[in-house]
Amino acid sequence: MIAGPDGTEARGRDAVDPLGGFRDRFVIPEGLIYLDGNSLGMLPKAAIARQRSVVEEEWGEGLIRSWNTHHWIEAPERIGAKIAGLIGAQPHEVIAADSVSVNLFKLIVAASALSPERPVLLSEKGNFPTDLHVASGAAQIVPRLRLEIVERDAIEDAIGPETNILLLTHVHYKSARRFPMEAMTRKARDAGARLIWDLSHSAGAVPLDLNRDGVELAVGCGYKYLNGGPGAPAFLYIAEALQERLSNPLRGWMGHAAPFAFADDYAPASGIRRFLAGTPPIVSMAALESGIDTFADADMAILWAKSVALFDFFADLVERECAGFGLELASPRESDARGSHISFTHPGAFALCQALIADNVIGDFREPDIVRFGLTPLYLGYADVWEAVSRMRRILESESWREPRFAVRGTVT
Amino acid sequence: MIAGPDGTEARGRDAVDPLGGFRDRFVIPEGLIYLDGNSLGMLPKAAIARQRSVVEEEWGEGLIRSWNTHHWIEAPERIGAKIAGLIGAQPHEVIAADSVSVNLFKLIVAASALSPERPVLLSEKGNFPTDLHVASGAAQIVPRLRLEIVERDAIEDAIGPETNILLLTHVHYKSARRFPMEAMTRKARDAGARLIWDLSHSAGAVPLDLNRDGVELAVGCGYKYLNGGPGAPAFLYIAEALQERLSNPLRGWMGHAAPFAFADDYAPASGIRRFLAGTPPIVSMAALESGIDTFADADMAILWAKSVALFDFFADLVERECAGFGLELASPRESDARGSHISFTHPGAFALCQALIADNVIGDFREPDIVRFGLTPLYLGYADVWEAVSRMRRILESESWREPRFAVRGTVT
Repeated sequence: MIAGPDGTEARGRDAVDPLGGFRDRFVIPEGLIYLDGNSLGMLPKAAIARQRSVVEEEWGEGLIRSWNTHHWIEAPERIGAKIAGLIGAQPHEVIAADSVSVNLFKLIVAASALSPERPVLLSEKGNFPTDLHVASGAAQIVPRLRLEIVERDAIEDAIGPETNILLLTHVHYKSARRFPMEAMTRKARDAGARLIWDLSHSAGAVPLDLNRDGVELAVGCGYKYLNGGPGAPAFLYIAEALQERLSNPLRGWMGHAAPFAFADDYAPASGIRRFLAGTPPIVSMAALESGIDTFADADMAILWAKSVALFDFFADLVERECAGFGLELASPRESDARGSHISFTHPGAFALCQALIADNVIGDFREPDIVRFGLTPLYLGYADVWEAVSRMRRILESESWREPRFAVRGTVT
Repeated sequence: MIAGPDGTEARGRDAVDPLGGFRDRFVIPEGLIYLDGNSLGMLPKAAIARQRSVVEEEWGEGLIRSWNTHHWIEAPERIGAKIAGLIGAQPHEVIAADSVSVNLFKLIVAASALSPERPVLLSEKGNFPTDLHVASGAAQIVPRLRLEIVERDAIEDAIGPETNILLLTHVHYKSARRFPMEAMTRKARDAGARLIWDLSHSAGAVPLDLNRDGVELAVGCGYKYLNGGPGAPAFLYIAEALQERLSNPLRGWMGHAAPFAFADDYAPASGIRRFLAGTPPIVSMAALESGIDTFADADMAILWAKSVALFDFFADLVERECAGFGLELASPRESDARGSHISFTHPGAFALCQALIADNVIGDFREPDIVRFGLTPLYLGYADVWEAVSRMRRILESESWREPRFAVRGTVT
């Protein structure tokens, strides 16, 4: 067990946490230390009533009329505008739609067509797999486009006159390493290339100001820090100046200028709406909106300051309390070089993660040897971190993570 | 008012309806005659508890663990297998995923690559717009593919050695006209072309036996007759023999052979799962599953027989009770030439539809002069049809549909 003073200190910090009140906006299961909000955010309490309402009243009673009376038809833009407020974009520059994968495909195909003479779609080796997979699929169907994947440290040098699209994930899903957004965007622009940012591990935790940083194109995830529920629809950002120049390759009716005219000919809607495809899944969209609404009145600078403090507290505690047990910090110590999760390598990472889960501390394992803990400043407290490290130390001390039952692999961890 | 005997007859037919008990599986708002289940199916009562459970227990308490413990990860295939049972497919030939638009895009791009020497993507003028829009988008990015749209009656003659893909909607969204599935599929196959069927207005109402009819490729909608909730995920069918030959252009991580190995290189899953893209919207997926479960123990032949009877009853009543008011049947009278809705032309179709809605009879208007009524045999009764026609006659007699308030156009009707 960790000595008393740490628990006292943690509780003291929680008591003066300016975001402490936000914890009450979430359902927190008794006894659970949830450090996986970067995989699936917790359930907002407001979502309970909202989900009952969208199902039982809007669908059940309103039926087809709810497209108008309950404003379902405006949901992609309305929710997009709320996300815009969290990422430094204008309200009409973001829509909520489809998945990160599908949105990435739209943007790669659409943006690469602006510079057909440039053959390279450049990305990072070890980027989140769906980004690389979608990129490889897009490269197969866009004439003359080829995917080049280089080591992280070689990316800047690889940007050149052949680069059409640079596809980067702002915060790396394993290490939490963060690219400098303004500098990389400028570097790409100076070379005549376009940068598509994947904000999946940033939006809702890391400070973002897409407009200030000159970002043209981005996608992001709804179910991580945005608390939008399992598999929540994703979002897509296109800077205003670029919107009318891009053609969505997925020409669904919801992106048509006049969807209910039922015309044979495709005419894209003006603005960001042209990047909609099919009918949005309204019940999941409503959950996403509840998730984003949990940020109401949250100051993103205070949010980030707390993420930094939670990270430092976590790293310090592990350093002091778990020394000699094989944990190595795999995330940057400097706050402006990382996102909002903390990762360690450990030779028994998978089993350790399973032992933690069995002890009600939820983090996750990532191949080959990473234990990862999400730090969600809206609802995580210092006492949670203290308790998590305390339980981890107990597991490491007793070597209970070596029990055979923790070595069994499931499909999702 | 329609004379008494009709109401009596309708109630009598409801009393002996072998599907009468299914009505109890749905939330039916008091006084509402809902003839728009082909746009958005009604709320299954079981969905109320299921939605509370997926949100409040599976998300709220289970959190990330529910991907395994509540089998979220298997939802696309599990729900697909249930849909397969309604459309004459094998369980492993269907997945629930994305939207009709996105799924159509996947299939057009994937299937057209099998015959790159054939340049024509053929479809019907006046097909549902999203089908034509998606087709035009796909044709723009598949090398040498061009979209040809011909009148319905010219399609058979247009199929030839240049035809790569024939894209047909089984039941037309306006007229309810139905293509003969087996004959058209054979015609395309004999010409060396591939037929993609859009089953949006068929699945859950019209008898389908994809395997028997030699169908290779199909997509369909989850929120119409399948009662899956607003914007429910769609489905996608690929005959077993073709699955390993097709490459999904939307290479999301959920279609990877080992999504949680997080490998840089894309390796498609075996079978239909390779046609998944991003993370599925679990809350909407759960609603879709509740919708499909309303068909449990329903005999599709009895379902279709009731649809036919409802159609005939509707057409007969309109012919007798609304004669001289300008309504013309726009759907085929012969049951094997149509689907499960009934359409009429009327010079004041838009206003008539609005007047009906104001009188709690929900159908919908389709450009330029169509009033359309969905006949959903699971929950619609003969007394509903009688009451709808009765109210329509009253509106037509009193000319109240000419009131200016009914001429105002909204965004969705």
